[in-house]
Amino acid sequence: MWRDLRPIGLDAGSGGYRRFAWTGADADCRAWFRAQAESRGLAYEVDRNGNQWAWLGDPAAGDAVVTGSHLDSVPDGGAFDGPLGVVSSFAALDELRARGASPTRPLAIVNFGDEEGARFGLACVGSRLTAGQLTADQAAELRDADGISLPQAMERAGYDPEAIGPDPERLARIGAFVELHVEQGRALDLSGDPVGVASAIWPHGRWRFDFRGEANHAGTTRLEDRRDPMLTYANTVLAARKKARLAGALATFGKVAVEPNGVNAIPSLVRGWLDSRAADERTLAAVVEEIERAAAERGDRDGVEVRVTRESFTPVVEFEHALRDQVAGLLSADGRTVPVLPTGAGHDAGILSASVPTAMLFVRNPTGVSHSPAEHAAEDDCLAGVLALADVLEGLACR
Amino acid sequence: MWRDLRPIGLDAGSGGYRRFAWTGADADCRAWFRAQAESRGLAYEVDRNGNQWAWLGDPAAGDAVVTGSHLDSVPDGGAFDGPLGVVSSFAALDELRARGASPTRPLAIVNFGDEEGARFGLACVGSRLTAGQLTADQAAELRDADGISLPQAMERAGYDPEAIGPDPERLARIGAFVELHVEQGRALDLSGDPVGVASAIWPHGRWRFDFRGEANHAGTTRLEDRRDPMLTYANTVLAARKKARLAGALATFGKVAVEPNGVNAIPSLVRGWLDSRAADERTLAAVVEEIERAAAERGDRDGVEVRVTRESFTPVVEFEHALRDQVAGLLSADGRTVPVLPTGAGHDAGILSASVPTAMLFVRNPTGVSHSPAEHAAEDDCLAGVLALADVLEGLACR
Repeated sequence: MWRDLRPIGLDAGSGGYRRFAWTGADADCRAWFRAQAESRGLAYEVDRNGNQWAWLGDPAAGDAVVTGSHLDSVPDGGAFDGPLGVVSSFAALDELRARGASPTRPLAIVNFGDEEGARFGLACVGSRLTAGQLTADQAAELRDADGISLPQAMERAGYDPEAIGPDPERLARIGAFVELHVEQGRALDLSGDPVGVASAIWPHGRWRFDFRGEANHAGTTRLEDRRDPMLTYANTVLAARKKARLAGALATFGKVAVEPNGVNAIPSLVRGWLDSRAADERTLAAVVEEIERAAAERGDRDGVEVRVTRESFTPVVEFEHALRDQVAGLLSADGRTVPVLPTGAGHDAGILSASVPTAMLFVRNPTGVSHSPAEHAAEDDCLAGVLALADVLEGLACR
Repeated sequence: MWRDLRPIGLDAGSGGYRRFAWTGADADCRAWFRAQAESRGLAYEVDRNGNQWAWLGDPAAGDAVVTGSHLDSVPDGGAFDGPLGVVSSFAALDELRARGASPTRPLAIVNFGDEEGARFGLACVGSRLTAGQLTADQAAELRDADGISLPQAMERAGYDPEAIGPDPERLARIGAFVELHVEQGRALDLSGDPVGVASAIWPHGRWRFDFRGEANHAGTTRLEDRRDPMLTYANTVLAARKKARLAGALATFGKVAVEPNGVNAIPSLVRGWLDSRAADERTLAAVVEEIERAAAERGDRDGVEVRVTRESFTPVVEFEHALRDQVAGLLSADGRTVPVLPTGAGHDAGILSASVPTAMLFVRNPTGVSHSPAEHAAEDDCLAGVLALADVLEGLACR
């Protein structure tokens, strides 16, 4: 399975993946998913929002157990974030069949579209649309760097953008959703366990900071006559780190756009995107507020106008305790220890948890590195993940 | 003249010009130059490095008086930087003819190619090649953002890249070069004069700072586990400003490139370009060294590797005193005051000054704003510039 998926969207220069929603690389990934489903005799379908489903049993019967993840990537992402969950789902189904387990509930594997949000700037678009957390009108406003809207991109990829919208009937058929994901931190490495269960997802959001100054000649404009937004941006980057550190939160400026971006021109505009997360929403709000205040204060000194736009926000997700404990129980049955741990990363499972009982499994990542070609999981740990997922599916759907 | 030139390369969104070397907009500017030359019966030619020349009189006679400037622009540049000098050259020639002045020396108007360096990152390419300050081999290494080399770009624009190289015979024919340029500061505005004469060009250079860290997930990587090059970059931006201020120099980070540049990814690489200038080379070297040291120190703290590459350096230019005084004398003949002032901006005149006697005229820019759509010169001041240039040409070539 991995072999066919590995070369898709691989950038020879960076060694990272560039599988952005509704591009050619994405289409190749989706063709791979469909081939995996059909080779196993699963009923393949695409929902109104472009998410792919592979069914074992009758979807209309309800109370289905669904597993899966996503196949798209961040720019220069690693091989595991997303694909490990999808590959493991197919492998776990193979394992169930090898065990001769016969499901008493419908089973499905899903590939949610555009989880990373690398192209349109909003994460978990496929699951948000399905869960009604993003409307068709809002989705139509999303544009990529070339000005192509999400519906246009879907249409060019061969999908019907008119169909986009909430899908409550589909959600009503799901009794439980379990997503397996490579861990994006070092908790399992530090505890020495190959697999863990998620307790919660930290609340997180994206804020766009627009720093507007005045373009001018870098060689002739006196320092005191400048309105240089790069200074305000730089100060805000350092302030964000400090405020996050003091609050035990996370704050990152990973994306910047500069106009005109010329070596000998003072910029007219610097745009920086803040990603911030914390264990609870109050802390997160306080940290972002302090960063905004620091930006505004420095902007006053620099003659730079600062405008902040919240582009997305995902509240804290506490995974349903009953399902979480059931999953943890299934994995601890033979005396294994299964740590239960929170994560700072957003997931489709987090979106779905507002509508259906949802759980997550994490597979150990020895370096904790994620969203990078260095992201890794050992083969043994991947196998442990498959077996754990098979145990969970068997426990939930076959007894 | 202005009317035909105005729409070329104008970006409707920014209101600024995007006339980059060897692009379609550049070709349109060059067609305009040729038409202006031919409509005046001037002998038109393109030299081996793609610079355009329009001759009155026999070039082979030697001791020519040459005027002109450039037509290309920075990204979102203004209408005057470059074109004012070329337009004023043609207008001054019209004025000479209206006065009935008959040249005793050959006269030429020149449009130097790729002065701003917006596409290939090196300024004054056309004049550097001609003066032998840039070799054909070095030029072949220059690449634009799409990986197209300078010779490839010239070839696609219809020029012969094999011909690129130094042009000492051409330089030997020039007795004096005078470039008129919109002022890129507020000295003339503060002194209340429409026209000034250049004394010197500050030494200046471009340094590329590569900050290498480690890409990672912005939501799951603990602050203490990060190697975030954005922090080192931000600190260096603020350090540059401070070091420049203390030394009475200029330092600007106007261009940045980030990899992978994703909202939820700690960058693996931040590239920032430093433009720095000072009144003398010792001060400049000291300022850049202090900025490099600050970057390295912060890099150590952040676990970020810092590498600095000097991409270009232009030594101080003292314009030849004899020609400068002659020009200033011609302009002060009827009692006008003509301030003599230095500039921080590089020019083709600065490059040529190493090979031929060179002078510059500046036209008042009321806001001092440059490299921006807000760059401006009043119509009266432009006219004063044309008359001043005509006086200089008449004084040098017609007596």
